[in-house]
Amino acid sequence: MAEVKAEEIFKEFKEHSIAEFFKKNRQMLGYSGKVRSLVTAVHEYVTNSFDACEEAGILPSVTVELKEEAEDKYRIIVSDNGPGIPKPYVGKALATILAGTKFHRYIQQRGQQGIGAAGCTLFSQMTTGKQIFVKSGTGKGKAYTCHLSIDTVRNKPIVTDMGDIEEKFKGLHIEGEFAEVKYEMSDHGVYEYLRRTALANPHIEIKYVDPEGKESVFVRAIESMPEKPTPTKPHPLGLAINDLLEFAQTSGNRKLSGFLIDTFSRMTQNKVNELKEFAKDVDFDKDPRQLTWPEAQELLKAFSQVKWIAPDGSHIKPIGEEQIRTALRNILDPEFISISQRKAAVFKGGIPFIVEAAVAFGGGSGKKTDEGYSGNILRFANRVPLLFDNGSCAITMAARDIQWKRYNIDLDSQPVSILVNVSSAHIPYSGVGKESIAQEDEIIDEIKLAVMEAARGIQKYIGGKTKLREEAKRYSTIMRYAKQLASDLGDITGRDKEKLEKSIEQLVAKHYPKANKEDKPEQEGNASALAEGDE
Amino acid sequence: MAEVKAEEIFKEFKEHSIAEFFKKNRQMLGYSGKVRSLVTAVHEYVTNSFDACEEAGILPSVTVELKEEAEDKYRIIVSDNGPGIPKPYVGKALATILAGTKFHRYIQQRGQQGIGAAGCTLFSQMTTGKQIFVKSGTGKGKAYTCHLSIDTVRNKPIVTDMGDIEEKFKGLHIEGEFAEVKYEMSDHGVYEYLRRTALANPHIEIKYVDPEGKESVFVRAIESMPEKPTPTKPHPLGLAINDLLEFAQTSGNRKLSGFLIDTFSRMTQNKVNELKEFAKDVDFDKDPRQLTWPEAQELLKAFSQVKWIAPDGSHIKPIGEEQIRTALRNILDPEFISISQRKAAVFKGGIPFIVEAAVAFGGGSGKKTDEGYSGNILRFANRVPLLFDNGSCAITMAARDIQWKRYNIDLDSQPVSILVNVSSAHIPYSGVGKESIAQEDEIIDEIKLAVMEAARGIQKYIGGKTKLREEAKRYSTIMRYAKQLASDLGDITGRDKEKLEKSIEQLVAKHYPKANKEDKPEQEGNASALAEGDE
Repeated sequence: MAEVKAEEIFKEFKEHSIAEFFKKNRQMLGYSGKVRSLVTAVHEYVTNSFDACEEAGILPSVTVELKEEAEDKYRIIVSDNGPGIPKPYVGKALATILAGTKFHRYIQQRGQQGIGAAGCTLFSQMTTGKQIFVKSGTGKGKAYTCHLSIDTVRNKPIVTDMGDIEEKFKGLHIEGEFAEVKYEMSDHGVYEYLRRTALANPHIEIKYVDPEGKESVFVRAIESMPEKPTPTKPHPLGLAINDLLEFAQTSGNRKLSGFLIDTFSRMTQNKVNELKEFAKDVDFDKDPRQLTWPEAQELLKAFSQVKWIAPDGSHIKPIGEEQIRTALRNILDPEFISISQRKAAVFKGGIPFIVEAAVAFGGGSGKKTDEGYSGNILRFANRVPLLFDNGSCAITMAARDIQWKRYNIDLDSQPVSILVNVSSAHIPYSGVGKESIAQEDEIIDEIKLAVMEAARGIQKYIGGKTKLREEAKRYSTIMRYAKQLASDLGDITGRDKEKLEKSIEQLVAKHYPKANKEDKPEQEGNASALAEGDE
Repeated sequence: MAEVKAEEIFKEFKEHSIAEFFKKNRQMLGYSGKVRSLVTAVHEYVTNSFDACEEAGILPSVTVELKEEAEDKYRIIVSDNGPGIPKPYVGKALATILAGTKFHRYIQQRGQQGIGAAGCTLFSQMTTGKQIFVKSGTGKGKAYTCHLSIDTVRNKPIVTDMGDIEEKFKGLHIEGEFAEVKYEMSDHGVYEYLRRTALANPHIEIKYVDPEGKESVFVRAIESMPEKPTPTKPHPLGLAINDLLEFAQTSGNRKLSGFLIDTFSRMTQNKVNELKEFAKDVDFDKDPRQLTWPEAQELLKAFSQVKWIAPDGSHIKPIGEEQIRTALRNILDPEFISISQRKAAVFKGGIPFIVEAAVAFGGGSGKKTDEGYSGNILRFANRVPLLFDNGSCAITMAARDIQWKRYNIDLDSQPVSILVNVSSAHIPYSGVGKESIAQEDEIIDEIKLAVMEAARGIQKYIGGKTKLREEAKRYSTIMRYAKQLASDLGDITGRDKEKLEKSIEQLVAKHYPKANKEDKPEQEGNASALAEGDE
């Protein structure tokens, strides 16, 4: 075979747009499998609505409607009471990949990439050839409507039929047709997704009309807005040299010291003075934009040598203990729940995050599915339920890594479920589809600590149950001999055997009060079954 | 709280480049975790080298060298004997995300996205602030060297120090420094990655120098180039309306009929005539660029009504039975191997793919790791070993879904390993990091069929082993009574008891020849242990 020259090969060299890339790799956006594709589209629209409402300071009310148009083809209609999208931005916001208001900020929101809604537009046009219909209004003046699609070669919006309407409409209404999708009532379906979303977001109202026209309302449980997340500053620990230089290069400060104090969390003039002791080669009066790689390296080393106050988690809003309890009661109706919340920690880039965990026992906990663990672990990121890709998620990884035996728990045979929510201004998702959290060491460690803390609470409960069961076993064993004993004693003493039996029974019952009274029927049944088996 | 107006929120609206996106989400490229990050970089460079060599018709010889520069900081040096990169393309090829020669083609190659090598450049500059060093030459005339990085805001290459050198160099030599990485000898490390790569690619020579200077050579086992994959045409089945319209819009044909015949696999004039019977509303003489969505829909329906020859798999190059056998012997040294290869099937977009599977029993098979199944399943895509993200991979999913009991196999307790290789011009990876295959129904089904076929081969072997064990059990049970029987017979007949015992033993041994002779020590040991346990 003759060798082909490089020039020949590189004739075909091309650049392509990110829209083309995702058109060819839609599975990376979460559009693989019919059921999952439908949930992905709904998920992108509703999280966008929640974020928009909350950012505008509006208690979110969102309506989701699914209509079956043909086999494997559905219309999705999502409308909210949010601020709407100003006309000049609508094309870019909903039909340009990698454009948005969230990417450059350090604020805890559900969306963070500027991909989701544009991905929906792409998926709709790919599978149906249709445009997305949008209506937007501020409640004042005129609202407008338009149709949207993406010019995938250039990753630019195509906006058609743009026009004002007389209707006094406030919010955003999006309507799209999607094919190669399927509606299913399952743990991975739209209803379950919305239910879990509602449970983790008690201030949100969701009205849902399913393909059969059945209406469900997930009512608002809390009438006040949760505290608004505020932009966060990165913590000095967890920063890489690259991060530090990047902040320095875009700084408005003239002096390095001022830049440090203004840019990073927990940085004060006193801290800067301390740092000077360790980073002797660094001129703290120099222009931060002139900072070099070796200087940044020295600064970072100094960061690790001084003592810092723990990262500030006040800008992060977790679900909260009471709400987790309510959520778990609704989803699993367990016998016992143990909940833990960690303090803020930081991962790469100095980004703080907070982990909450709960372990539930009994009731509907620990349901097994084909995917093994999936039914046992309820995963959330910034209050958004994660229904897919559990196998590659840091939460699954951490939960599997725990020595459950230490807590008298066997995940394979006991009715145990685990809930974990990770909150942060920047969740490191492992994929663009945002269905799993990357396996970063710092995050896995925090999740493990949180779950282990919750597991200790459950351990006591299971320990109590075990003690109770053992007591019940002894009780029932002795009781089986009571009749014989009474009879023997009656023969010896000549006293009434029935009276003797009753006395003995009372005596035994007094010694094993729990076994006799609490949960008597079930406990006795279990205990004697066990006792029989042991013989 | 006062409502914030949309205009206020959208003030912060920005577009960002794909390079910025991956800078903030490097975990999506496979750069999460120190060990994994190192493997990812090596993987991107070597697969690029293999593809370049093969495309140029050169038997690949690749050298990989790792040097520890500081704690968690390594220099990676990869050089090949390929065609090199022409000077005008080097910046775009290695320092622009989403640029390359492969994206638009339907040819089976390892890389397919135009992200990998540029991702390495990005990761290097993020973690060390350094540029990548490149040397390239065609073996004729002068070679050149340069340094590369990415302007992430614009996703454009920064090429510095470009200059010709006098050295007669042929191929591509890339050198980069990477921090936040770690070398480890494990199933997820660089050595194992290269070893598995070599095993699945017998025509490739890899020289590897590890951080301690130890040199390993994975020698070339086959001196001839594998047949070169040729561009494939999509099969009519598996196409979506969107795919059909896209092909039509870029067609050079003037008539729809000609376009269909030229564009799709298995399409002939006879087939077009057949299709006309089913798609009566479609004008087959019209300009394909004028094809409408409803017409495409009707055509697709017609595609599903006529009979097609199975997709053509001739352009796809699987590993091959003998090579899989050699690979498994090298990796696992098993007692028994059963291998299957499926015919070409198609998935979404009409793209053909071929699945090969093997089930190995005994030896080093079925090794357990913390991640559960991971040690049991050796995953490959286009001969590239997939070491990470097993939990979200179609291969893992399919293997778990099989009713192993039917094959007398218990993956949790028996020494069983599964190897699967999926080959195609377009593998639908679930993430940009290309470490797992998306869970597309068509692919999962084919993998299951392939693995089940291989499992049937193992079933016979295990069945044989079980029969043997049962025979051995009977043999040893009877043997235990031989002495007593001989003694009793001796008493009755008055003959020599020792001679009698020997005769009885010989008689029994004759009836159970396998139990007595084959693998005697082990089988007997096992068998009697079992027999004891049964009492």
